[in-house]
Order: sequence, then C-alpha cells, then structure tokens
Amino acid sequence: MKAIVDTISTGDDFLIATHVNPDGDALGSAIALGLALRAKNKNVIIYDRDGIPDAYSFLPQNKIVTKSIEGINVQTLILVDCNNPTRAGLNGWAGYTQSLVIDHHDTDGDFGDLKFIAPDIPATGIIILRLIRELGVELTTDMAQNLYTAIALDTGTFRFANTTAEALRAGAELTEAGANPGLVADRLYNNWSKKQFTLFQKIMGALEISGDICFMNSPVALFKATSTTLEDTENFVNFPLVMDNIKVSVFMKESDPGMWRASLRSKGDINVAAIAEKLGGGGHKNASGCTVMGSYKKAKSLLLRGLKSLTK
Amino acid sequence: MKAIVDTISTGDDFLIATHVNPDGDALGSAIALGLALRAKNKNVIIYDRDGIPDAYSFLPQNKIVTKSIEGINVQTLILVDCNNPTRAGLNGWAGYTQSLVIDHHDTDGDFGDLKFIAPDIPATGIIILRLIRELGVELTTDMAQNLYTAIALDTGTFRFANTTAEALRAGAELTEAGANPGLVADRLYNNWSKKQFTLFQKIMGALEISGDICFMNSPVALFKATSTTLEDTENFVNFPLVMDNIKVSVFMKESDPGMWRASLRSKGDINVAAIAEKLGGGGHKNASGCTVMGSYKKAKSLLLRGLKSLTK
Repeated sequence: MKAIVDTISTGDDFLIATHVNPDGDALGSAIALGLALRAKNKNVIIYDRDGIPDAYSFLPQNKIVTKSIEGINVQTLILVDCNNPTRAGLNGWAGYTQSLVIDHHDTDGDFGDLKFIAPDIPATGIIILRLIRELGVELTTDMAQNLYTAIALDTGTFRFANTTAEALRAGAELTEAGANPGLVADRLYNNWSKKQFTLFQKIMGALEISGDICFMNSPVALFKATSTTLEDTENFVNFPLVMDNIKVSVFMKESDPGMWRASLRSKGDINVAAIAEKLGGGGHKNASGCTVMGSYKKAKSLLLRGLKSLTK
Repeated sequence: MKAIVDTISTGDDFLIATHVNPDGDALGSAIALGLALRAKNKNVIIYDRDGIPDAYSFLPQNKIVTKSIEGINVQTLILVDCNNPTRAGLNGWAGYTQSLVIDHHDTDGDFGDLKFIAPDIPATGIIILRLIRELGVELTTDMAQNLYTAIALDTGTFRFANTTAEALRAGAELTEAGANPGLVADRLYNNWSKKQFTLFQKIMGALEISGDICFMNSPVALFKATSTTLEDTENFVNFPLVMDNIKVSVFMKESDPGMWRASLRSKGDINVAAIAEKLGGGGHKNASGCTVMGSYKKAKSLLLRGLKSLTK
C-alpha cells in the first residue's frame, strides 16, 4: 500500500476507471477516491464505460463520472474494483504511462505496475477508506456516503458471510463522517418499480422446488407482458434462500428465444461455480452464472442434473 | 448508569426479566447480561414468560432462560427491553425488594427504583454492552453473539433509519469478541419453512395496490389451506415497501372469522400509528397495528379511508 500512496502523492494527473456494468462498490469507491485526489489538488478523471445506472443516481457527486475517454492522456491509470483493463472497458486504450490496481476480486491476469489486491476484504470501499486515511485527506460527507454505499452493497448491509469487524468499524466511522445508513439501505433495496414487482409476483407464483433446489424462470413472453427487461430481475434469485430447507436457488432468464441466462446461488459450502463452469459460465462458490440453450424444460433438466450431484 | 452499575456490583441475587413474545433484542440482551452477572459470581435467574421461540434456538446458552418464577424471591429485579412488569408477564409477582429498568422503548408508566431508558438508542443490546464494559466483565463469544443478535434484529442488520455509528461500532467490537455476522443474519432472515413460503406466494399473488398504499390479506381459509398460523406471517408486511412508489403497506390477518388483525408499515414521515390509534390499536410512527371487525371488504375500506387522508 505504501508504494501506491507514494505514487499517488507525487503524481499529477489520474484516470480512475472501474468495471463495466458498475455496482455500488465500483462507483462508490471510484467517486470517493476521485474526490480525495481532487482534495489534494490532483487532476482526476473518473471513468465508467456504462455510466451511472438510475439506481445509483443517489450517490453524491456521481456526475463527475464520465463515459468517454476519447483523446485523453494521463500519467497514471488507477483501476478500482477490477484488475484488468478489459473488465473496465479499456480494451486497446493506451493513454497512460503507469498503472495502479486496487481491488478485492481474485486476480484475472497480471496487469498493473503496482497492485493492492485483497480478496479477503469484503469491499473495495474498505481499501479506499484505508488509502484516503494514509493520503492524509479528511473524509467529507460526500466521500463517506459513497464509501458507505460501497461497503453496504458488497456485504449486503453486513448480512453476508464476508462481513468483518473492519467492515463494521468502517461503517461506524463513515456514519460519523456523515454517511446515512438508513438512506443508503432504502436506496439500495427499496427501489423496485411497480412493473418489476409485478414481474416478481408472476415469477414467485410459478416457482418450482425440487428437493433443496429452487427454480424460477422468466420467459421472453413474461418480460414482454410486464414491459420489463433482464435488468429488472436483479436480486430475484436470492429470494428463495429465505427458506431454511433451500440450499440452491436458480433463476433462468430467457434473453432471446431459446437462450437461457441462468443465475445460481447457494448457501454454505455448496459450490455452484463448479456447475456453471462445466456449462461454459463462471463466478464464485455461492454466486455464479451460465447460459444454456434450448427449451426451458431441457435447459432446466441439464442444470438440475448437475446441481443434484452437488447437494447429495 | 453509574447507580445501576453500583447496585449490580454490590448486589447478590437477581432476576432478569424481559418482555412476553420475546424478540432477538429482548433475549440477546437478557442472556448476555445474565452471563455477565454470572461471570461476577452473582446468582441470576433469567425469565421470559413465553420462553425461547424456535427461531432463537441458535442463541448461545439460551437454555438458561426459564419460563417459571414460582416460589422465587430475589433481591433485585432487572427489567430488560421493557419498562413495566405487565409487559414482562410479571403481573402480581412481588418476589423482589428493588427494581432496575434497562430499555430503549418509550416509557409506559413509572416503574423502577433505578432506570436507564434511552429511546434514541436503537437496541437494548447496545445499552447492555455499555453496562458489561462498566461492570468490568470481559466479553465472551457467547455474550458477543447474543448482543450482536440483539442489535442486528432491532436495526435490521443496520438497514433501519435508527442505525447509529455506535450500533455499527458495537457490531465491530462484538465481531472481534467472536460474534458471527453472517450466521446471525442467516438465522434471523433465512428461517422460513416451506409452508410459510407457500403462504407468502399466495398472499403476494393476491396483493392489491391503491395509489401509494399496498394491501395484503390472509383469511382464515388460507391459513387452514397452508397449515399455517398468524405467527408464520412475521415480516410479510414489510415486503411491498421494496416498491419505490409504495409509502404504506397493510397486512390484514383474519385471526378468527370476521376479526382482522391489521399490521401497518410506512416510510418516512407517514405516521400510521395515528390511524391505528383511532381504531383502538397503537404502535410507532412507521410500525403499528389494530384490530378491525367485519368482512374483509368493510375492514379494508375502513383502513383505506384513514390512510388516504395521511398520504394525500
């Protein structure tokens, strides 16, 4: 971390980039770091290829995030919450002379002149908080709210098994610096549209249980009937895990006729990534995904066969 | 607080009692305080009239809670997470010479020789943590897990608007002392039985929306058809609040034919207790309840009339 602090302290201009299809940890971390560098009078551009999703328009100062890097040249690229340029949508961009990587995901390649990659830390926002402290920048309310959101998202407001004492203590410090825990949770979780809720009702009504595995699906026709898209189904897959006897939840979304994007979630030691990888997908032990072609019945039985071998 | 610490330090035998129909804050606080007093070699009885619900059987050392106080006489009664003997099911019991009250609910009467009642503190568990520190007792893993559960329940794992920096810092300290945040959240939230889930599906399917108010109901026949009871519906009423346009959620449970127990939840400044009180019930601004008699249609329109005047 010291080398990163030194490089930032002595540098002049930076591009902070985070991953495509950004979440709260990506955006909150990138914005907070950008604000901290500006507080130190650095030139900073904050880049996300996909910009700010509506759900994150509550993040303070989110308008400083740009979607374009055309013609830009900087001294230092800082990748935040991802660890290779492809994941940040920076394929082929060469407008930097040195690169830093700050992330908590498993490494994917060997990019970066200096790296702080810590898969044991539940959120990149925690690493950024450490960095801001070491840079000697005073936390503002805006930084605090961004970092709180980052940590809240990646720990499920301190519900997930990855939650550490450091995450909770960071939450306390950020709240003292002006973050609003109740507001962040409300924005993260109570942001469903009515049509999203209608879609949820329909999917819930047709849910199927096979032993300790739960299946839900949304065919193209259902998305059409409810004027919704795949993006409207975020988090649906987690819901059936409220049942104490359910160990695996599968949600199959038909993105195009006969093409099923399957999200897999599991509890405890059940490694759904093993099944997702066999079918050409990937992810983590408790959260993975893959795409299966064919009729719903065929696609479901393919997944079920693999999953049954796991939960036996 | 100092007078309470002194009274406990110099006392010999105690009965710790908490409220009937206990929740995680009541039980976690009472058990942790009991363990701390035993660590100081005090005689302690921990009493809850209704005992430990199945959902809380994961609390370490929960078996020290007793449901009987027959023939018991103690020096000091300590009421925890409630502030009058009726709420603790102690009506008419006089087996104590002095009484202490430790609570975070609004006071209801003037009971107690010494009191620490702090409605601004989100959970009684936080007060007990302070008390244990002042008593000079070292936190054990068992105390920590009980207190973490207490705080997690009453802040919705730090999601509710009542969440403070102190609550989060307490969470951090308790985690360092051995509490397991992921396990507690799993036990608190992922404990639905399959039949509970079936009931939820049916209720969701028949949910009605009127402007920014959402109605759900479960008639006697539905409880029968799903082999469930009123107790199986805990938390259902909160779910529709995930919709950004919904400000009030009402859940009407038919406990006996023609008798509807209504739970009311609201967001922000909408005071549903005002309506509940008008109809003979009570509660807090964002969470209240009342009982309405008659057909579902009649009962619903009675509630709707009152609620419409609030959300206009």
